[in-house]
Amino acid sequence: MTPLGKHLSRTVKDLTRKAVTGALADAGLQAHQIEAALFSNTRQPMLEGQNAVRGEIALSPLGIEGIKIVNVENACASGSSAVALGAAMIRAGEAETVLVVGAEKMVFPDRTEQVMAAFRGGTDIERIEETASAMAALGASLIPADAPDAPRSFFMDIYAGIARAHMEAFGTTREQLAMAAAKNHTHAAENPNAQYRTPFTPENVLADKPVIWPLTRAMCAPVSDGAAALILQSTGAAKGNKRAVKLAGTGWTTARARAVDDWDGHLGKRAADLAYEAAGLGAADMHVAEVHDATSFAEILQIENLGLCPRGEGGPFTASGATARGGRIPVNAGGGLIAKGHPVGATGIIQIVETCRQLRGEAGSMQVEGARAGVCENGGGFLGIEEAVTLVTVLTR
Amino acid sequence: MTPLGKHLSRTVKDLTRKAVTGALADAGLQAHQIEAALFSNTRQPMLEGQNAVRGEIALSPLGIEGIKIVNVENACASGSSAVALGAAMIRAGEAETVLVVGAEKMVFPDRTEQVMAAFRGGTDIERIEETASAMAALGASLIPADAPDAPRSFFMDIYAGIARAHMEAFGTTREQLAMAAAKNHTHAAENPNAQYRTPFTPENVLADKPVIWPLTRAMCAPVSDGAAALILQSTGAAKGNKRAVKLAGTGWTTARARAVDDWDGHLGKRAADLAYEAAGLGAADMHVAEVHDATSFAEILQIENLGLCPRGEGGPFTASGATARGGRIPVNAGGGLIAKGHPVGATGIIQIVETCRQLRGEAGSMQVEGARAGVCENGGGFLGIEEAVTLVTVLTR
Repeated sequence: MTPLGKHLSRTVKDLTRKAVTGALADAGLQAHQIEAALFSNTRQPMLEGQNAVRGEIALSPLGIEGIKIVNVENACASGSSAVALGAAMIRAGEAETVLVVGAEKMVFPDRTEQVMAAFRGGTDIERIEETASAMAALGASLIPADAPDAPRSFFMDIYAGIARAHMEAFGTTREQLAMAAAKNHTHAAENPNAQYRTPFTPENVLADKPVIWPLTRAMCAPVSDGAAALILQSTGAAKGNKRAVKLAGTGWTTARARAVDDWDGHLGKRAADLAYEAAGLGAADMHVAEVHDATSFAEILQIENLGLCPRGEGGPFTASGATARGGRIPVNAGGGLIAKGHPVGATGIIQIVETCRQLRGEAGSMQVEGARAGVCENGGGFLGIEEAVTLVTVLTR
Repeated sequence: MTPLGKHLSRTVKDLTRKAVTGALADAGLQAHQIEAALFSNTRQPMLEGQNAVRGEIALSPLGIEGIKIVNVENACASGSSAVALGAAMIRAGEAETVLVVGAEKMVFPDRTEQVMAAFRGGTDIERIEETASAMAALGASLIPADAPDAPRSFFMDIYAGIARAHMEAFGTTREQLAMAAAKNHTHAAENPNAQYRTPFTPENVLADKPVIWPLTRAMCAPVSDGAAALILQSTGAAKGNKRAVKLAGTGWTTARARAVDDWDGHLGKRAADLAYEAAGLGAADMHVAEVHDATSFAEILQIENLGLCPRGEGGPFTASGATARGGRIPVNAGGGLIAKGHPVGATGIIQIVETCRQLRGEAGSMQVEGARAGVCENGGGFLGIEEAVTLVTVLTR
C-alpha cells in the first residue's frame, strides 16, 4: 500500500503503480503472471470525469493487460467486494493468480463542492432529504442547545444520528467515543503509512473542533488519497508460500428494512455471522480486528456486531482498554480509518493488507503478539437505517 | 428488458423495476429467491451524482435486499462483465440463483455537455488529445476535402479512424458500412423494444446526416435509456427448466499494445477464441450472433473477429446478405445497437437476453429458424488502438 494522505501531485495511475509494484514484489511475482485483476475506485467519475475502464487505464502502463479486468464499486466497501469477487473467480477456476487493487484520489482543494457531492452519492440522492431528517431526529434530545457544527460530509450526519441512538439505547457516552478515537490515533503513531501520526488523549479528542454532535473532528475519518493492492492465489498456486495467509471466510450482505432499535438485525452482525460460519470459527478465535471506523462511534457499534463484546457494551469494552494494542482483542492496531486514513475504494483492501501483516508477524512496532486469526469489517454507503453493504472477511494463518 | 429509447420521465429505479419484474416473471421466481445480484450502470455518477451503491438503491424497493450485491463497471462491456462475474459466483458455490441487471439513463436534454463528457470518460482522459490525434491520422487521406462533420461522442471519432484503417487495409467500402446499418435498421422494424423501427436502404443510410467520415448518423448507435435483467442459475437449480439456456463459454480480455495492422491480434478475436475454446465449439457452430455495433463498421470488424467470415471480408460478407435474417449467420437479428438502442450498462445483458429468446424459439417475427447456439460480442471503452475490454459469450440450448 501507499502512504495515505493528501497527495496533491499524484494521480490514480501513480498511486496504483506504487501499490501494485509493492504487492508484486512482496509476492515475488511479475506482472505477466497476473491472470485477472479487479479494480476498486469510487471518485474518478465525479471528480475527474474518468467514469469507465479505470482499472484497464491504470494497470496497462504496468504491463498488466490482455487479461480479465473489471471495475468494482460498493462505496466504502468496494475494496472488500473486489476481494470477494476475486476469490470467487479463483474458486470458479477462472484464474489462479488475481490482483486486487483499490486506488483513490479524493483530495481536490479547488473543488470542495464536488468532493462533498461525491460523499452524498453514497446514499440515495433522490431520498437524501428524507435520510437527513431521519438521522437528525435520532437522539435529538441529547444534543446540547449550544452545540456548534461545521462543514462536513453527509456521512457524518448519518454516523452522528446512529451514535445518538446508541447512546439512548445503551448509555454509550461521548467520552467512550473519544477513547476509541484516542486509541486509534495513538496506534497510528507507529504506522509509517498513516495520514495522521499524532497520539491523542480522550481529552484531546473531545477538545478538537466540533463536527456534529456528538462527533469532533478527531473522531472522524479524514479525506485521503492512497492505494493498496493484494494478490489472491488458489491453494495450489500458493503452495509452498510460507507467508501465505488464508482467506478463511467472507460474509457479504446488504441493507434490509428493519427497526432502528433492532440492533442485532444490523447488517454488520449478519455479515459477521456469515463470515464466522464460512470460516468455521467464532469471535473468540480472533486475535486482531480491523473495523470500519469512518467515525469512532462506528468502531463501538461494529465490535459489538463482530461479537468481540456483548451488544451495547462497545463503549465500556473500549474504555476497558480491551481493544488497544496489548488488550484482549486489539482493534485497528494500525490506526483505523480515522487516523491511518480512508481512501474510500482502497480501504477494504488496506484492512486486509494490514491484517495479513499482523498474521505474518511483519507488523513491526504495531505487531500483536501471536496473531494467527483476524477479522476485517468493511461497510459502504447508507440505505434506510444502516450501511448499504457490509463485508466481513476472516483471515487465518 | 424495457423498450429502449428516450424515457425522459423514467429514472434508473423505474427502468430497473420494469426489467427485473419481467425477468423474475419470465423465470417463474420471486424476489426472495435471488441470492446475489450484480448491477451494471456507467452514467449515474457523472449525470446524476449517484456514484455509489447504485444496485443496492435500485433493487431494495423491489425487496431484493439483505443479499450479496455489487456494482460492476467495464464501460459498454459492463453488462457482460457482470454476467461473467455472476457465473463465477455460481461456479464458486457462492449462490445458486443470481440476478444480473443493467440499467442506464443517458438522455438528459438539458445537459448535453455532461452527456458527451461521460462518453469521453470511456477512454483515458489524461491522454485524450493523443488518442484523438492518433485516430484522426488513421486513413486520413481517404477523407474527402469537403466532408462535413457534426457534434458527436468521442467514440465516433475512434470508430471512424479504425474504419478508415480497415478500408485502407482490406478495401472495405462506405457502401458496405451502409449495408450493415441498413440491415440492422430493417431488422429492428420487427423489434417492439427497439428505439428506431424504420427500415433503411443502404442509400437511405448514406444520405443521412454526416457524423464524421465515413460515418453517417444511421451508422451510429443513438443515446438510449433502458434496462435489461437476466437470471443465472446453477445447473442444479435450473434442473427441469425446459427453457433454460446454457452459458457454454466466456472469453474475456483487455486491450494490449499492438500494431494497428495486426488485425488478428485484436482483442475481439482473442476473446472469441477463448470463448469458443471454453464452449468446445467453433464459429461454424453458431446460428445467431449479437455483435457490438456501436457503429456499423464495428459489426464488420467484429464478425471477422468472431470468425463468422475470414479476416478482411466483413464488408463483402455483409454485402452478400449472409448476416441478414434468413442469411447464413444472422447478425443482430433484433437490430443491434444502432437501431435497437445502446443503453451502455445494459447493452451486454440485452445481447444475451435477445440471444436467449432466439435459442428458445421465442423471438417472434425476428426468429432465426432452428437457432440452438449463439455468440455475443460486447466491447467497452478504448485504450491505445482497441477497445479497453471485450467479452464474448457463447450460449447453447
